[in-house]
Amino acid sequence: MTKAWPGNYFEDFHIGQVFDHATPRTLTVGDAALYQSLTGSRFALQSSNLFARAAGYPDAPLEDLLVFHTVFGKTVPDVSFNAVANLGYADCRFMKPVYAGDTLYARTEVIGLKQNSSGETGTVYVRSTGFNQNDDAVLSFVRWVMVRKRKTSSPPPPVVVPLLPKSIAVTALAATVPQLKSWSTALSGSTHRFADYLVGEKIDHADGVTVEEAEHQMATRLYQNSARVHFNQHAEGAGRFGRRLIYGGHVMSLARALSFNGLGNVFHIAAINAGRHVAPLFAGGTVYAWSEIRDAQPLRGRGDVGALRILTRATRDVPCTEFPVMDGAVDKPGVILEWDYWGLIQV
Amino acid sequence: MTKAWPGNYFEDFHIGQVFDHATPRTLTVGDAALYQSLTGSRFALQSSNLFARAAGYPDAPLEDLLVFHTVFGKTVPDVSFNAVANLGYADCRFMKPVYAGDTLYARTEVIGLKQNSSGETGTVYVRSTGFNQNDDAVLSFVRWVMVRKRKTSSPPPPVVVPLLPKSIAVTALAATVPQLKSWSTALSGSTHRFADYLVGEKIDHADGVTVEEAEHQMATRLYQNSARVHFNQHAEGAGRFGRRLIYGGHVMSLARALSFNGLGNVFHIAAINAGRHVAPLFAGGTVYAWSEIRDAQPLRGRGDVGALRILTRATRDVPCTEFPVMDGAVDKPGVILEWDYWGLIQV
Amino acid sequence: MTKAWPGNYFEDFHIGQVFDHATPRTLTVGDAALYQSLTGSRFALQSSNLFARAAGYPDAPLEDLLVFHTVFGKTVPDVSFNAVANLGYADCRFMKPVYAGDTLYARTEVIGLKQNSSGETGTVYVRSTGFNQNDDAVLSFVRWVMVRKRKTSSPPPPVVVPLLPKSIAVTALAATVPQLKSWSTALSGSTHRFADYLVGEKIDHADGVTVEEAEHQMATRLYQNSARVHFNQHAEGAGRFGRRLIYGGHVMSLARALSFNGLGNVFHIAAINAGRHVAPLFAGGTVYAWSEIRDAQPLRGRGDVGALRILTRATRDVPCTEFPVMDGAVDKPGVILEWDYWGLIQV
Repeated sequence: MTKAWPGNYFEDFHIGQVFDHATPRTLTVGDAALYQSLTGSRFALQSSNLFARAAGYPDAPLEDLLVFHTVFGKTVPDVSFNAVANLGYADCRFMKPVYAGDTLYARTEVIGLKQNSSGETGTVYVRSTGFNQNDDAVLSFVRWVMVRKRKTSSPPPPVVVPLLPKSIAVTALAATVPQLKSWSTALSGSTHRFADYLVGEKIDHADGVTVEEAEHQMATRLYQNSARVHFNQHAEGAGRFGRRLIYGGHVMSLARALSFNGLGNVFHIAAINAGRHVAPLFAGGTVYAWSEIRDAQPLRGRGDVGALRILTRATRDVPCTEFPVMDGAVDKPGVILEWDYWGLIQV
Repeated sequence: MTKAWPGNYFEDFHIGQVFDHATPRTLTVGDAALYQSLTGSRFALQSSNLFARAAGYPDAPLEDLLVFHTVFGKTVPDVSFNAVANLGYADCRFMKPVYAGDTLYARTEVIGLKQNSSGETGTVYVRSTGFNQNDDAVLSFVRWVMVRKRKTSSPPPPVVVPLLPKSIAVTALAATVPQLKSWSTALSGSTHRFADYLVGEKIDHADGVTVEEAEHQMATRLYQNSARVHFNQHAEGAGRFGRRLIYGGHVMSLARALSFNGLGNVFHIAAINAGRHVAPLFAGGTVYAWSEIRDAQPLRGRGDVGALRILTRATRDVPCTEFPVMDGAVDKPGVILEWDYWGLIQV
Repeated sequence: MTKAWPGNYFEDFHIGQVFDHATPRTLTVGDAALYQSLTGSRFALQSSNLFARAAGYPDAPLEDLLVFHTVFGKTVPDVSFNAVANLGYADCRFMKPVYAGDTLYARTEVIGLKQNSSGETGTVYVRSTGFNQNDDAVLSFVRWVMVRKRKTSSPPPPVVVPLLPKSIAVTALAATVPQLKSWSTALSGSTHRFADYLVGEKIDHADGVTVEEAEHQMATRLYQNSARVHFNQHAEGAGRFGRRLIYGGHVMSLARALSFNGLGNVFHIAAINAGRHVAPLFAGGTVYAWSEIRDAQPLRGRGDVGALRILTRATRDVPCTEFPVMDGAVDKPGVILEWDYWGLIQV
């Protein structure tokens, strides 16, 4: 019996099961600098303590997706160590800003199980929540992953598929964003405010960024995400792609950073309605992105900020001038990420 | 009309125009660590709070070129988004030390315009200034870039070419360097002081460093420099070089780091007289450097520090044992950077 | 006479010689984040200030090997600039935790000299000690390197070979580890405590990690280790391997990070009995690791922690399911590191 962790198989999960994940992590300005260096983000609120204080924050909050990836990374050893695929996210809420110096830990509850028809795998639905040092929830999301069974012959568990909202209610947003005091559009890099965005509007974020092996490995390790498909060329060279697979969250971060060009004042990801990695990305690929405004809602009692529902699509090796959508082909250039979120922007 | 920023074209600039640039940026020890990791700098003053305090600084200042690149990066979206080439720098003064925790922002004024004879491009001269959170200017420099015109048929603006000093007066240096208290040459890594350097002396910095795509991309993103030629292999593969172009400032940083071997006590770049990227660098290239002492001047009223005017040349794939100079060929190994600066060193 | 440092040759060393090394270095949370990002370490004590405080530390200490590499890096210009090979380490003790904000400097004494029979090289034995800002020794180790002679004809020095302990006495361990107060095995990621490990037990750490050029260069520069074989493809391309050689210490760090999977509660490297890089690693290689428990000792007067003597072997491109040992072949996949250390673990 080895002491190395073999990970959980589909048989090891049951409804209501709770994991308190290792490793708690104090995020610092060092993590913020690396996130900056690896993604190229340019949002003013997260870049400048002065801008943040002028806006009403005590200090620059950490990037929302740095928080997401950190919490996600903690869940990997317990939830997705033996995963075949990360199928999707839903009902993700950012509930409290996280600052350099905060310590995050994560807890996950199993909320759904459904064996696949092959008998070789099953889908596990989990809700993961990240907490800070005061036990305040900072982030909560549902994800579902396809996990290997230990034995095909194991009996299937009762089918439980959680009912998930297609989108998060606007009333659930922004409770934790301070009343915005000032917002310089010169310093934020965009003059476009809430009222300037129209539902149905499409924005090509124009730039593209090529991803190197060292970059995605460094990002994924920063999040202490130990999923082996991202790191081991010796093993993956003999695997289904022949390549290391890039952590899908890195694509989300790149798409968010690229979206600065067109959505520069969308200062906070309040909620993620849905996220799907519809095709893989490998090193050497170039990521482009475009966004569609799906909804625009004022927030009750808040004259300072409004919510834009944004569908961002990232592509591999395809510029987004023509606003490409998923065409089902995973082997050729095209859409690799569909990401539907609520972003907050000053009114 | 898209909300993605198309950048300014030559027609969009006019004399006296001022840009307050996005994104203000709080520099931290995280940025310092990344700068260290990406360049290999070993200067004691910037590496150790203890050494810095012993020398008379309140704490280790950030590397001068980290400050330069941060300010430069902010100017890119407004000034050089549609640039064909970054032609040169001049009259660059470092006016105040920058410390971890300081927030920098940048302002640029257009000081010269000259359409090129082709009618397709024009040269834009700008003075950019970086400020800290107290509105103190920390850095000021002139650069000129060749920018595309939107239409060849647009009428040319009146020609204004600023008069630029060939070098910065010694009297303008060192005002902001504290009176040096102590300086351990054991800890600084070099026994050579001001009086040991002779005008005309040549120093081969000996070592070479090969640059990887991930490294220059991480460096350039750390500075929030979004110039697209550095990041997008998919587009650049079809461009004039077929490769991503490395940010010239990264070459300056590597040359400065290499120069530790021979100029280990040159603790501060007080001013840059001129800088030219005379040939491009691509990933896989190895950078070497050598320096020539062009001048050595005492500083009035300062018995503690003197100024060396240093011409550093960096090469690609050519060791500097023979002190190579520019030969005009950009396609083969040779000089890629000529960089003329005033460095301060203890007497 | 150039001012660039040529390094010391075998003739330049004498018994009792002491080097006070450049460059003192303040380690920060930025360095910790980079170490995390480059190695993938997941030990809770070093990741979380909260976990560390609950355990009895004032804050999360920096990774022991980050401290080791930082001190090691400082010794390179004086000791191993002209080294042909880094032959081994012994008698390495970690004497005090190092925290973000501490400043390290290093001193080395020459303790042995032995010319090799060829007359072209000699072995130099040194003891290097790292100190913090309070002049407290934080780390001390012996290493021996093969250094080139300036001239084959130089007379050999008297042979002095220091007597080195094969292992460090258990009584020398743990003096500086605080009395552990609490230790959550959920948060630490491992349920295995001191008593769970058996002498002779073998643990395959299972995962593998492929190393990129950018990664090892960034790690090695972070430590200000300027040994030229790691950075210069232009020169190394014509050298004995045709490749840049990866700093052996990076392999130690990767092996330690991989060992989390099986040794997750071994929170502190108290001492390194011996370390040997038995074959080189180059970029593109995948590192695996396995460990053998060689001894398990209680610590007098300490009911809270015990010591495990661990022999960790790292391989290149060979999974460790079969627990491979060194076979003497350096040109094919196999063991590249043998590393014998005392690790502390809660009882």
